[in-house]
Amino acid sequence: MIVQKYKDMLQGKSVIRQLSEFATQRGKEIGYENVFDYSLGNPSVPVPQAFTDTMIKMLQERNPMELHGYSQSLGIPSVRDKVAASLNQRFGMNYTGNHIFMTTGAAGAIAHAVRCVAQPGDEVITFAPYFPEYAPYINLTGAVLKVVPADTESFQINFEAFEQMLTEKVAAVLVNTPNNPSGMVYSTQTMQEMARIMQEKEAQYGHDIFLISDEPYREIVFAGVDAPYPSKFYDNTLSCYSFSKSLSLPGERIGYVAVNPACTDADLISVMCSQISRGTGHNCPPSIIQLAVAEVLDLTADLSVYETNMNILYKELTDLGFECVKPGGTFYIFPKALEEDAVAFSEKAKKYDLILVPSDSFGVKGYFRLAYCIDTEKVERSLEAFRKFVKAEY
Amino acid sequence: MIVQKYKDMLQGKSVIRQLSEFATQRGKEIGYENVFDYSLGNPSVPVPQAFTDTMIKMLQERNPMELHGYSQSLGIPSVRDKVAASLNQRFGMNYTGNHIFMTTGAAGAIAHAVRCVAQPGDEVITFAPYFPEYAPYINLTGAVLKVVPADTESFQINFEAFEQMLTEKVAAVLVNTPNNPSGMVYSTQTMQEMARIMQEKEAQYGHDIFLISDEPYREIVFAGVDAPYPSKFYDNTLSCYSFSKSLSLPGERIGYVAVNPACTDADLISVMCSQISRGTGHNCPPSIIQLAVAEVLDLTADLSVYETNMNILYKELTDLGFECVKPGGTFYIFPKALEEDAVAFSEKAKKYDLILVPSDSFGVKGYFRLAYCIDTEKVERSLEAFRKFVKAEY
Repeated sequence: MIVQKYKDMLQGKSVIRQLSEFATQRGKEIGYENVFDYSLGNPSVPVPQAFTDTMIKMLQERNPMELHGYSQSLGIPSVRDKVAASLNQRFGMNYTGNHIFMTTGAAGAIAHAVRCVAQPGDEVITFAPYFPEYAPYINLTGAVLKVVPADTESFQINFEAFEQMLTEKVAAVLVNTPNNPSGMVYSTQTMQEMARIMQEKEAQYGHDIFLISDEPYREIVFAGVDAPYPSKFYDNTLSCYSFSKSLSLPGERIGYVAVNPACTDADLISVMCSQISRGTGHNCPPSIIQLAVAEVLDLTADLSVYETNMNILYKELTDLGFECVKPGGTFYIFPKALEEDAVAFSEKAKKYDLILVPSDSFGVKGYFRLAYCIDTEKVERSLEAFRKFVKAEY
Repeated sequence: MIVQKYKDMLQGKSVIRQLSEFATQRGKEIGYENVFDYSLGNPSVPVPQAFTDTMIKMLQERNPMELHGYSQSLGIPSVRDKVAASLNQRFGMNYTGNHIFMTTGAAGAIAHAVRCVAQPGDEVITFAPYFPEYAPYINLTGAVLKVVPADTESFQINFEAFEQMLTEKVAAVLVNTPNNPSGMVYSTQTMQEMARIMQEKEAQYGHDIFLISDEPYREIVFAGVDAPYPSKFYDNTLSCYSFSKSLSLPGERIGYVAVNPACTDADLISVMCSQISRGTGHNCPPSIIQLAVAEVLDLTADLSVYETNMNILYKELTDLGFECVKPGGTFYIFPKALEEDAVAFSEKAKKYDLILVPSDSFGVKGYFRLAYCIDTEKVERSLEAFRKFVKAEY
């Protein structure tokens, strides 16, 4: 018989996806350019030309059997070495290629990291607001996701609740900074305090508690914002990265796990990941994409549009009376809705062709997310819609 | 704490990989061209030029945000439609795109198919000789792999043992035809008998038993060989395909699950796969590779070299007195060793720079596998080594 658990999951359709489908449908009626679709976190700037040029050059010049051959399941050694060197230079770490496990994006990285350090039944803690896909990511590994309530003052961490929930059953803590959906970046102070608590609990319980750090927005940090590298604060850190946002390559499925060299069993974890991959069917990320990103590790797409869009929206929304913590990075902003029920708020916004995601599925009530990875021109045109919406409805 | 189960797996190093590493090492001493390395099943012919041309054209001409954007987790709709149409034309099936789930190769396909139809603890049956990676593939899903002993007369199916082992606990049967390592193709008669037994047991137990058909060697079938499409014989079939061998693209991780439209819950299975992928971190196969293979679905690399190599080896080995069933496809041949202990046999062969994989890890004793996906010129040079080996040692 087909397995009921996955069949049941079909009922729980993603709110973000439903809104995105609504936007597409509405676009067919009035022209998609007239729908202010803030639903989906798809990059809106092209991959650097150097990536495309590298791909074409490899296709033209390299032996196709080598180019398209099996990568080791850990990733291509030269690629792993280059990733380590780039991280070391940027963050003063001391990774070697052996600490890097290449994955099919951040989802693949988290899938492997969690299986490395959490037994089925163990708890994994994350912080609201959080990316709703964490629930299936974690729960389908056999571990159980627990969510620390949001600190809605600053969208940093609610440490009191965190300490209470960090029981002996917790095998790992999953953080996401810069954060989807809040756009906040955890400060040095936040990271220090989180590390202090986790170290204290490790000592108290006599077992490791791992930090799984989901960092797809690492490169999207705005001017003047303190954006420390989480692994610097806590040895037992597995950093999960994706090139999806920084290089605008979400469909090509490329990322990595970087194991802090001071982590417990650091030399074992990446090779354990390659055992885990035999069960997930991962095997290796696409070879040609591995080789191509290795040539552009220190480049990004032109990410400046996101800060431009953020400043426009932040100014307009606060002028309109929205309470909003100013984002430090990502391409999200997370204002407080103008009524308690964010779902009702979002539903009313649709009348003005504003597609806003209510915060409920991010684990906090009464807020909404805008994914402003769209053209600045469209952001500007959307402001009048916001004005009309607020004036008419509130 | 890191999870012991995966740590323990590090002890069980693959025999094939060990031999391949030995061959590489030996190559450094005497030149790799002088090592007759029959260990690894890596394609030895280039991808069709049309694939490379398509990739370059897309990189040069297409909007990079679309080209590298997220695919739906089910795969790109146009790609799924084309795969369905190609299968329908070749095999007289009636798939629609909705029956196709794009995966990261056959490993990804099997990982999803097993999770769809087997609860943790259920049994999945396969037939010896079998690809040794099936053990971790299946066991890490939570299901348990059970192996039907080989029919060493013909390397078709030992039906008596199969019937006995097909108990109520069996959720799925995993077949691989054309077969790695035997090189045999299951005949129409074999498929009919297998289907008859499975249908009988389904009726007896009152539950579905799914056929998971692993078909990466589908296109490598030699002249005059009867190579039926497994899904034609049994409605509850999930066909798992990889383009790795047919297009010589093993590193690019692209394949699919094709759900027989007459299968139980056929319309649900591919969407269930997309739920499963949230837990495996699969998300979608690389977008650009999906789009490129969709343009060359009815092409293959020039696979004729494999039949040429097979004929040379089959003649020489049988002339030398080896018992051997003539392969019907793949790039493997599976002769009986000249002593009972195939490991000892393989060890002696190393002295002649012949790298042969003993059959023990394929679930049968006393045989060895040659992966003859190497240049014909090298196959021919290896014959003298075989002659010396047999003369001196047996």
